[in-house]
Amino acid sequence: MTDRVDLNSDLGESWGAYTMGEDAAMLEIVSTANVACGFHGGDPDVMAKTVALAKANGVAIGAHPGFMDLWGFGRRQIRGDSPDSIRNMLVYQIAALAGMAKAGGYSITHVKTHGSLGNMAAVDPELAGVVADAVKAADPNLILAIMPGNQLDIAAKAAGLRVANEVYADRTYDDDGNLTPRSEPGAVIHDAAEAKDRVLRMLDEQAIRSTSGKRIPARIDTICVHGDNVAAVDMARGLRQALEANGVTIAPFSTFVP
Amino acid sequence: MTDRVDLNSDLGESWGAYTMGEDAAMLEIVSTANVACGFHGGDPDVMAKTVALAKANGVAIGAHPGFMDLWGFGRRQIRGDSPDSIRNMLVYQIAALAGMAKAGGYSITHVKTHGSLGNMAAVDPELAGVVADAVKAADPNLILAIMPGNQLDIAAKAAGLRVANEVYADRTYDDDGNLTPRSEPGAVIHDAAEAKDRVLRMLDEQAIRSTSGKRIPARIDTICVHGDNVAAVDMARGLRQALEANGVTIAPFSTFVP
Amino acid sequence: MTDRVDLNSDLGESWGAYTMGEDAAMLEIVSTANVACGFHGGDPDVMAKTVALAKANGVAIGAHPGFMDLWGFGRRQIRGDSPDSIRNMLVYQIAALAGMAKAGGYSITHVKTHGSLGNMAAVDPELAGVVADAVKAADPNLILAIMPGNQLDIAAKAAGLRVANEVYADRTYDDDGNLTPRSEPGAVIHDAAEAKDRVLRMLDEQAIRSTSGKRIPARIDTICVHGDNVAAVDMARGLRQALEANGVTIAPFSTFVP
Amino acid sequence: MTDRVDLNSDLGESWGAYTMGEDAAMLEIVSTANVACGFHGGDPDVMAKTVALAKANGVAIGAHPGFMDLWGFGRRQIRGDSPDSIRNMLVYQIAALAGMAKAGGYSITHVKTHGSLGNMAAVDPELAGVVADAVKAADPNLILAIMPGNQLDIAAKAAGLRVANEVYADRTYDDDGNLTPRSEPGAVIHDAAEAKDRVLRMLDEQAIRSTSGKRIPARIDTICVHGDNVAAVDMARGLRQALEANGVTIAPFSTFVP
Repeated sequence: MTDRVDLNSDLGESWGAYTMGEDAAMLEIVSTANVACGFHGGDPDVMAKTVALAKANGVAIGAHPGFMDLWGFGRRQIRGDSPDSIRNMLVYQIAALAGMAKAGGYSITHVKTHGSLGNMAAVDPELAGVVADAVKAADPNLILAIMPGNQLDIAAKAAGLRVANEVYADRTYDDDGNLTPRSEPGAVIHDAAEAKDRVLRMLDEQAIRSTSGKRIPARIDTICVHGDNVAAVDMARGLRQALEANGVTIAPFSTFVP
Repeated sequence: MTDRVDLNSDLGESWGAYTMGEDAAMLEIVSTANVACGFHGGDPDVMAKTVALAKANGVAIGAHPGFMDLWGFGRRQIRGDSPDSIRNMLVYQIAALAGMAKAGGYSITHVKTHGSLGNMAAVDPELAGVVADAVKAADPNLILAIMPGNQLDIAAKAAGLRVANEVYADRTYDDDGNLTPRSEPGAVIHDAAEAKDRVLRMLDEQAIRSTSGKRIPARIDTICVHGDNVAAVDMARGLRQALEANGVTIAPFSTFVP
Repeated sequence: MTDRVDLNSDLGESWGAYTMGEDAAMLEIVSTANVACGFHGGDPDVMAKTVALAKANGVAIGAHPGFMDLWGFGRRQIRGDSPDSIRNMLVYQIAALAGMAKAGGYSITHVKTHGSLGNMAAVDPELAGVVADAVKAADPNLILAIMPGNQLDIAAKAAGLRVANEVYADRTYDDDGNLTPRSEPGAVIHDAAEAKDRVLRMLDEQAIRSTSGKRIPARIDTICVHGDNVAAVDMARGLRQALEANGVTIAPFSTFVP
Repeated sequence: MTDRVDLNSDLGESWGAYTMGEDAAMLEIVSTANVACGFHGGDPDVMAKTVALAKANGVAIGAHPGFMDLWGFGRRQIRGDSPDSIRNMLVYQIAALAGMAKAGGYSITHVKTHGSLGNMAAVDPELAGVVADAVKAADPNLILAIMPGNQLDIAAKAAGLRVANEVYADRTYDDDGNLTPRSEPGAVIHDAAEAKDRVLRMLDEQAIRSTSGKRIPARIDTICVHGDNVAAVDMARGLRQALEANGVTIAPFSTFVP
């Protein structure tokens, strides 16, 4: 069993009068927060509050940039933005959060793409290259959180960026290491005990297990957990407790990825 | 006569498919550009393009942040944002542009508030203090462009920020050094020759002349010119030529304000 | 005691991925829903769903238009829109909801202004006149929900519109019949029993009672209740039960205002 | 030669402080205007002004609804909206314009989809069906402007809607009657004389001619012209003059499509 791992969650996605997610509770559970930057969710007030709370809890933060699609929450596939546009919207969002963190006496450690932008880049070498170049242009010291082996992983390494390998506590995988589409049965794991057992096994084996049983070796740096509602928070809290009970230290991946 | 002055203009206010202003022409005339940051105008693509063109022309750039009011172009008075909200929206916008400049191999030198945010801060000590603190939190080396003697001037100095004193080529002043409201006759000068003569006199006297003839002493660092249309560009170009013909060097105020 | 009254609530204020309010629960309690139209909250999907659910529950619906200020949820005072702009934004929003209701086999009965737009119109005769004219231009058969005696009441009557007199279950009043500002102690009533007693007394007396005890006679057509959270829903449900226990029928004001 | 045809143009696409297109000039040339409804362009003020000017010029108006994508001007392909969402956003936009027209003493005659929404529906039977059903739900008397033979044409007829067959003055066609993609050479005709000759031939033959010379018979009801800039306006004006010189009356298609 590895002796340390990171728990990450997508936070700071409230906007204006609209509240989303149990951020305060999650910032007591996770070691890394991916903070929305105003395009698919998040606004300057939410960002400032999230930065302050993360800092107070010793939680590492990174930018969680998405498409300029507030109504669709960055989940709609948007086709037609030029590579330059993708690059610019990424640099803008990363810089905005980095500057707000700095003004709050904190700093960002990484980038994790949000929603459809991330999903599209994961399978599109050209788009993945644009994303990696944008992160590098914003700050070459930033780590890119990726799923092991996908196009973003390849592009990040080609750009000389450090990567954090991420797995999902509540999702299953196909033989290529991609998430089973949500439309398929069994794609999402709702049982907290099952999710916990899967995570412990992945950490023990340092490998992803596909639904067919295939073992895909991967250094596992961080586990993505969700805080959409009270049940999700409970699953995340239980996972943290189980990890610690198994002697695994929870620490920001920015403190240990090579 | 002073031997140098800056010419500044508000640029980068196009957005998406919408074009505003004769930016390319103006970037061959001015020495400083105030670049919109996406809230009242401007988007990541426009910002990237403006940064690149300013750099190519040796034009200094600064952030031109406004209210989150794209439809109203930041010109509507919006009452109800908390001081924290004002601070956060300013840090966000300044940081976004600073980061995009950095990614483009350039850097920002200053901040000039846009529209109603600036107008309201000019006469509201509390709001002015929030603005100055936000600029300082974003980067204490940034210069704040202000109208001499207004609340932003006072607040900037109290915060330890450097200021650039700005006058308008095409606007008249009252005895307090404030712009004559646009609703009053004679508020806006449409004649290029008259505008030029007024600027030369202000530079010669290092003072603002009110409509009543009052002389308000002020070190004059920068002259605001507009590029909304071809006539405005012509007025700006003519002003630059007249200044140079009078032995005045046009240089970014960031190179000389104390 | 009157034998019938309306219960109204502001609903359909969710937007995109963001959920706000306990709409489904409230649509089983109220007799009239004021539906957001996409400017301060609400989107076409939320509107369609709210229309369908209101229809299924026999709840009358009306437009709840606000400033074009999604981020501020229509609560910020926005100064600078021309009378024509106010008129156009109102007609647009009313028409959009009216058309969606029609496409859903339903129709709208009234208009209730939202947030700062309503608050500003309540005390500004010119703005109130613009609002009344806009409602009339959209559809002269629409009822305008107002607080008795304020400028919207006056303007609506001058325009020949029918009005529905509204009181708040959980707010106190000053001697002019205006709501006590939220900033003052005692402005909001959090105790459900107290709110219920106040409503029953207002209905019994057909008058508003100010905090100083002044009796302001007014035909009371509708009581505004809130559904922001579970406690608010409980207060609303309890109020309905108390009214019915006192022999008061709950019915849409559109069925009985003269 | 036919004795009458319609000239249509997409207008009312300005937004807030941003101006787009030579609307006033075009409204003296065309007989039908497709008016943006606020989602990809247009706002309540622009819509009101466009309605009034169209009415004054005797120009028929219709809704020109697009994706909720102001930044992308509705030109980006957005994938992920449910059929219900597409339907709701169409009804909302159509209703908003219809209501504003009514408040302005005018009425709408038709719908023409904008940008990517139209392009996607033209080749996707399911999406086309959703569009046709939405138009019918909004108002079954509305005419749908389509390109002859595409999926929208088929869906509109299946829904029992009347259609207006549209051709482009400045675009070429492939053998399936679809526009040659802009990325291909010769897709756009920049020469006004050539555009005029093509239109006259199409009207004479009541057929589209593909680039390979194939003759695709189609009743030609309306010719789309553009008003993006002065040259485009000149081309449109010249086309109108040429048509009238050839004895063709320019009239709104709503007055003659069966």
